[in-house]
Amino acid sequence: MPANPQNVIANLQELHALTADDHGAQRVAFTAMWTKAREWFASKLKKLPVEHHLDAAGNSWVTLAGASPRALVLGSHLDSVPNGGWLDGCLGVLTALEVLRAFAEDFSGRPPVTIRLVDWADEEGARFGRSLFGSSAFAGTHTIAADRSRIDRSGITLEDALRGCGINPDAIGEAAVERENIAAYLELHIEQGPVLERMGLPLAAVTGTKGVERHAIVFHGQEAHSGSTPMSDRRDALAAAAHLALEIRAIAGKHSDSVCTMGSVKTFPGIVTAVVGRCETTLDQRDLDPGVLATMHREAQEASRRFAAQEHCTVEWSKIWNIEPIPFHPHLISLCEEAIHEVASQSHRMPSGPLHDAAEVARLGIPTVMMFVQSLKGISHNKIEDTRIDDLLLAVEAFDRLAVKTMRWIEMQ
Amino acid sequence: MPANPQNVIANLQELHALTADDHGAQRVAFTAMWTKAREWFASKLKKLPVEHHLDAAGNSWVTLAGASPRALVLGSHLDSVPNGGWLDGCLGVLTALEVLRAFAEDFSGRPPVTIRLVDWADEEGARFGRSLFGSSAFAGTHTIAADRSRIDRSGITLEDALRGCGINPDAIGEAAVERENIAAYLELHIEQGPVLERMGLPLAAVTGTKGVERHAIVFHGQEAHSGSTPMSDRRDALAAAAHLALEIRAIAGKHSDSVCTMGSVKTFPGIVTAVVGRCETTLDQRDLDPGVLATMHREAQEASRRFAAQEHCTVEWSKIWNIEPIPFHPHLISLCEEAIHEVASQSHRMPSGPLHDAAEVARLGIPTVMMFVQSLKGISHNKIEDTRIDDLLLAVEAFDRLAVKTMRWIEMQ
Repeated sequence: MPANPQNVIANLQELHALTADDHGAQRVAFTAMWTKAREWFASKLKKLPVEHHLDAAGNSWVTLAGASPRALVLGSHLDSVPNGGWLDGCLGVLTALEVLRAFAEDFSGRPPVTIRLVDWADEEGARFGRSLFGSSAFAGTHTIAADRSRIDRSGITLEDALRGCGINPDAIGEAAVERENIAAYLELHIEQGPVLERMGLPLAAVTGTKGVERHAIVFHGQEAHSGSTPMSDRRDALAAAAHLALEIRAIAGKHSDSVCTMGSVKTFPGIVTAVVGRCETTLDQRDLDPGVLATMHREAQEASRRFAAQEHCTVEWSKIWNIEPIPFHPHLISLCEEAIHEVASQSHRMPSGPLHDAAEVARLGIPTVMMFVQSLKGISHNKIEDTRIDDLLLAVEAFDRLAVKTMRWIEMQ
Repeated sequence: MPANPQNVIANLQELHALTADDHGAQRVAFTAMWTKAREWFASKLKKLPVEHHLDAAGNSWVTLAGASPRALVLGSHLDSVPNGGWLDGCLGVLTALEVLRAFAEDFSGRPPVTIRLVDWADEEGARFGRSLFGSSAFAGTHTIAADRSRIDRSGITLEDALRGCGINPDAIGEAAVERENIAAYLELHIEQGPVLERMGLPLAAVTGTKGVERHAIVFHGQEAHSGSTPMSDRRDALAAAAHLALEIRAIAGKHSDSVCTMGSVKTFPGIVTAVVGRCETTLDQRDLDPGVLATMHREAQEASRRFAAQEHCTVEWSKIWNIEPIPFHPHLISLCEEAIHEVASQSHRMPSGPLHDAAEVARLGIPTVMMFVQSLKGISHNKIEDTRIDDLLLAVEAFDRLAVKTMRWIEMQ
């Protein structure tokens, strides 16, 4: 018997009833509500022939031992942002649970390869501002030395929150032992964007996570009186920034799937009667192709200098953060597409703009792919986050098929 | 003997030594330092055959009675912004004092027409945000009902500050009695802009004060994830605002002397990872021609709606403040130009972008003109505000000539 999608819906609703309030899901990592969600999850394992433990970074691992120690891992995260939705993260974990349950049933408790489920700790980083906590510890890309002193709104450090959950910050790198024998990693997630809805498609095979270049850009002009300074005498820092705000769309537009966003503009002195003397902006650029990303970054820098010169201003850049593009495994992408085709009339390949735990796994060279299911209105991180039930049912069915195909692929290797 | 410009320079320096600190002039209206400046000014009147009193709004009037009761008024303001310069306002008052002294000397204390000096109360509005306080009371355009509860940074109300200076807020309109017999009003002021310096000219005849349309413009789009939202699906409120920030330059550029300024831009949620859902901006538009001002205002509104539609956003406007253009008196503008020509090789006619007390006087139909003297780098409201001494000397000489010409013009009427 294949996985039963209705079981996933029932579990999603049960978890939501247990861990959400009027404002949405409240499963913020390293809080009591998160622990409660994980205890509920553990209770669902009781009738299954599995081993369950937390690793050194607080990731929760469930193992259904197979004939081969080589393991297929299915994962996502139970933690949510504050006031979150009913699907982000937990859809992947609860679908993995149902798929694992079906494997146990179909193979009488001993499938040909080992099947594992992982619930990564603190994917969202909502409380301390450091996302992908558990999966980066697993991947050895954690930055605990810098992160341990991060504080939440009430002044509690990440270090204290970790210790409160029985996690030793100095030992989180030991989560790397879980990598042993992992042959492939699969993750189902809601899209969190409007692409599939616009295309009228339920599912997509994700080609990788886009690289990100994130920079602060400050234009310096000359503050001047709005009444006494002729237009031709101005050095208007806002004008230079406005040119760039529009030009980044042309820069992104040269490539399909590229995005460039100016998310913040601050004007100084920022009063109605003064020409803007200093304009502070941010730029976020993403693409799956490292060459395209580098080109976009260079073009934005060149454009900013051109506009600054044109407006008799100067410009300075400083890096906020960046990450390289992380492509998923070509054969697993094909298998994902194949699985989608078997349940829906049409599939779609697309990169993920948001980061996911799967990116940390793929960085290790572990064959990885993600499947996206359509989000309504592209909204997530909000209690109105939603996906049609029919699409969720299709998603579980397709993900189950993908898991079986991947198990066969592991067997053949 | 004509006015002696060196006396003006000496008085300016004396006043500055008395009322400035390391950060600049501190003669903020209705403070102890302002009172000190006015006491110093009063001491300068002791040897002159004049009457001196404060009116109901705290304006300081000095009267040298002439053969005719018809009066020529020379004025400006002693108050400064915090950390202000050594010329803004007090140049006009101290030049008026020297010109009045010269009239008293030349006509043995009784000139053909009455000569008056006025030091307007709180031109700057620096402490309570209401500029032209005294001159608007004089002109009957005051807004005390709304302004009395304005508070300064330490929570003191304008009403309490007024009473502390012996001014009854309910009676300030009685300053209107001072209008009697006024035949003309002249004011010398620094330009506070870069026009004369760029042209290499010391002095200008001011044609009037520009009208101002000042509005808040808010663009509403859709907040969206910077990673998961394709460029084509965005409703970017910042993009609409950026188009307008650039378009206002074209709108102003159709007319000489027009200015349009976007001084403040605020982005919401204003974070690096989100497309801007709401963008709040301000627009300040100025011109001396009411038709041009109305056209610019309409064009900006049309452009904002066009850009909003183009970006799938909406836009709303709300008025912050406006004032109509106030032209000065054509014959007095000619006399001003004539006076400038007698001391300098070239004159220039220009409107004033900043407002001045002279505008309140002109609104009453009293023949009015202002003379501007060049500002270095167009900077004022700052301790580095400056004008070449040679230009100040020329300004006093030209203003003295303008006063004599205006007195003759009054006599002839």
